[in-house]
Amino acid sequence: MERKTRRLTCSERYPALSWLDWMLRGCSQVMFQNNPLTGLFFFAAVFVSAWQANALQVAWGCVLATLVTTLTAHLVAEDKTTLTSGMLGYNGCLVGAALPGFLAPSAWLWLCIIFSALMSVIVTVGVNRLLKTWHIAALTAPFVFTSWTVLLASHAFLRLEPLPQPLLASLPPSGTTLPLWQITLATLDGISQVFLCNSPAGGILLLLGLAVCSRWAMTLALAGSLVAVLIAMLAGAGRQPIVSGMYAFSPVLTAIALGSVFNRPGVKTLCYTLTGVVFTVLMQGAFNTLLKPLGIPTLTMPFVIVSWLFLLANQGEHTPLPPPPKGT
Amino acid sequence: MERKTRRLTCSERYPALSWLDWMLRGCSQVMFQNNPLTGLFFFAAVFVSAWQANALQVAWGCVLATLVTTLTAHLVAEDKTTLTSGMLGYNGCLVGAALPGFLAPSAWLWLCIIFSALMSVIVTVGVNRLLKTWHIAALTAPFVFTSWTVLLASHAFLRLEPLPQPLLASLPPSGTTLPLWQITLATLDGISQVFLCNSPAGGILLLLGLAVCSRWAMTLALAGSLVAVLIAMLAGAGRQPIVSGMYAFSPVLTAIALGSVFNRPGVKTLCYTLTGVVFTVLMQGAFNTLLKPLGIPTLTMPFVIVSWLFLLANQGEHTPLPPPPKGT
Amino acid sequence: MERKTRRLTCSERYPALSWLDWMLRGCSQVMFQNNPLTGLFFFAAVFVSAWQANALQVAWGCVLATLVTTLTAHLVAEDKTTLTSGMLGYNGCLVGAALPGFLAPSAWLWLCIIFSALMSVIVTVGVNRLLKTWHIAALTAPFVFTSWTVLLASHAFLRLEPLPQPLLASLPPSGTTLPLWQITLATLDGISQVFLCNSPAGGILLLLGLAVCSRWAMTLALAGSLVAVLIAMLAGAGRQPIVSGMYAFSPVLTAIALGSVFNRPGVKTLCYTLTGVVFTVLMQGAFNTLLKPLGIPTLTMPFVIVSWLFLLANQGEHTPLPPPPKGT
Repeated sequence: MERKTRRLTCSERYPALSWLDWMLRGCSQVMFQNNPLTGLFFFAAVFVSAWQANALQVAWGCVLATLVTTLTAHLVAEDKTTLTSGMLGYNGCLVGAALPGFLAPSAWLWLCIIFSALMSVIVTVGVNRLLKTWHIAALTAPFVFTSWTVLLASHAFLRLEPLPQPLLASLPPSGTTLPLWQITLATLDGISQVFLCNSPAGGILLLLGLAVCSRWAMTLALAGSLVAVLIAMLAGAGRQPIVSGMYAFSPVLTAIALGSVFNRPGVKTLCYTLTGVVFTVLMQGAFNTLLKPLGIPTLTMPFVIVSWLFLLANQGEHTPLPPPPKGT
Repeated sequence: MERKTRRLTCSERYPALSWLDWMLRGCSQVMFQNNPLTGLFFFAAVFVSAWQANALQVAWGCVLATLVTTLTAHLVAEDKTTLTSGMLGYNGCLVGAALPGFLAPSAWLWLCIIFSALMSVIVTVGVNRLLKTWHIAALTAPFVFTSWTVLLASHAFLRLEPLPQPLLASLPPSGTTLPLWQITLATLDGISQVFLCNSPAGGILLLLGLAVCSRWAMTLALAGSLVAVLIAMLAGAGRQPIVSGMYAFSPVLTAIALGSVFNRPGVKTLCYTLTGVVFTVLMQGAFNTLLKPLGIPTLTMPFVIVSWLFLLANQGEHTPLPPPPKGT
Repeated sequence: MERKTRRLTCSERYPALSWLDWMLRGCSQVMFQNNPLTGLFFFAAVFVSAWQANALQVAWGCVLATLVTTLTAHLVAEDKTTLTSGMLGYNGCLVGAALPGFLAPSAWLWLCIIFSALMSVIVTVGVNRLLKTWHIAALTAPFVFTSWTVLLASHAFLRLEPLPQPLLASLPPSGTTLPLWQITLATLDGISQVFLCNSPAGGILLLLGLAVCSRWAMTLALAGSLVAVLIAMLAGAGRQPIVSGMYAFSPVLTAIALGSVFNRPGVKTLCYTLTGVVFTVLMQGAFNTLLKPLGIPTLTMPFVIVSWLFLLANQGEHTPLPPPPKGT
């Protein structure tokens, strides 16, 4: 706590440090945290995973996009809190990690990352205003919307070339029982897939980053990923997607969002979160089928849809339900 | 009327009867009614149709899901009226009829029906809260959303196996003129298709159930189905889908919703309802094309979309229209 | 100004002239103007383009649909301003131009145009009411929604026959540099594509029509089309779609909407509009990929999506941003 205060004072003395602080907080908001140290761990996770996969452009794209969104947010945001809490930065951070994972490296890719990061801020502000009506957050919907647009457009423009084999390859189901060590690896992979990576080491670094900020969030992330892997395994999803964490990254975010960010902890919240995690696994399967003909990845859309529904339904409990329609 | 009062007193004396009452009302809300006797007729229609088609799992799924939604609604609902009027139950009732119609029977199917019925309550509460902004009802959107999710997911999970030939097979158009007796059968089939069945006897039982509650609703259901069959025939839709009631089940619901539930009866409402019915037939054709590549059925989505639009546009008449945008 | 006053007096003396006035204003609203003379130029553009393409049914469809929507609006609208400003007519006007461009001529086509024009009024009122919550306009969404429904349905009904080769054929990308005269033609084609035409003469007439009402709108339309053509060329879109104005018609509308209709002119608005135009080109590429498997055209959906987002995000600047979600 003392350390944090010192850091803030530093950034007041040296303005460049404020920028670094905002970028790190933007990165930490990917998992709903607001802490520069957590952001540092998250960036480290991305660099380690990208280095292992021989695809450092993913990590640099992530850094570049976070920088561009922070700059854009600085120009656009009238509300200082939104800027300094990283609430306008996490979508850009994810866009920057996603695009190099699906498009061939080129000067146009980097131009596209810069423009998409800029767009992600406008989309975030727009979606937030849309959802303000129901007092629910944009979550990662702006990231998914911006990335889908670019990935779909890449088929229409020669300068943006889709990679022959995307990072997140989806295979037909081939039900199987995994040994314990593979379940453990799949659980950690699932956590690292939140940043579109596929590395147990990255997963551990992300968990450490979460633990800095909230041990409860870390526990939920780990449990969410494990439950998702087990359910996908029991329901007979494909071996390859399970092992690479494909069924777990959306449930991880659902678990943190429903279990710690938007609801007060308790037994009821825990049951609600578990239901949400199971529904997210089902939704992941549905989106896999839905998007296969289009050749684009699901990204975190299953998490967004399920969490929006569960947040809407939960608010309904605290406010009176709508009256039944006339005449019934 | 006297009978209804006696029934209510009974259920106060014997709590188990309350549960039965809520389940029956949930079933009757599928066609916008709030009456246990209507619900009884509707369940009878489903059992007769399922027995004729040698697919009793459809009827048992329907009962099981209605039970689960009633239990879940009891846990979730803070508003007693929403529970007792069956407003949280009709979507689950439909999910329970839909899933066994498209997925192979297995223990996983029944587990899936239970979970989906539970989900349908959360989705209903969420969608209701979303639509509260415009004072329009969720209609059967939660049923469609939940069923589409499970049916799409069934392609990703080995444990959920899609049936090779779904109940509602869609064929390419092969325009033809039907004789009067086939038009009659198609009209009755169309009504029974509201519960995903394909049986004239079921259609007659559903009409009787409606008549118990509202003769006007029964007339609208019959007329809506007939008009839809005639228009589909004239416009040259395929023989097989027309005869099996594929073009009529959404218009049936549109006719009841626009003609009796949400608007005061009258000549203007009748014209409006007729326009809505015709548009629903067109929308059914559009959704047939839209969903063919995904291999999932349209369910009642054409009804939902058209009715939402017509309910929105109608409210606009009673409240001042939005001002023209700035500068024009 | 004097002339306009005289015209209004005329139409008061001769009621038939009011109807003509409303129809012309409906047509002029396609490009956000409210001026009968502009509407006259726009209709002239459609007739010249249709005559050049040997497809006069497009122009007659446009006139018929505008007449039907004006009649329907007269019956439906309670607000006199909405009727007289043409705000309920422009979507029908576009539907009437679109359907004959994609469906084979027949008696059923004309029946379908009349019904779709009527529907477009109900859809416009409904969508306006939906969007009133955020104080944003329906733009051309009702036109796109109605036309997509009919075009999708045409595959299910024998009486509505899709043309083997639509007016707006989409080809795979084949990157190329265009000479200056082709860029000029593509820019004018792009403007005429707003009315689903493909004619430089039509584009010039549309620009003249805009100039009658607002020279700034004309400049934005021209610049928007030029920027879109250049970006599509640099990004390596296909030669054929660029030359026929496929990448420019949505950006033309984005430029007028963001640059003159909904924002106060200025340097900041100009930058914002330019960003919007670039994003619309990207969105056009995305929608080309998205809709290819369905065989329906994108129409002006890329414009609608981008403009909604930019209008939402812009309002956010003038009102306080939403508070960050609980716990972050």
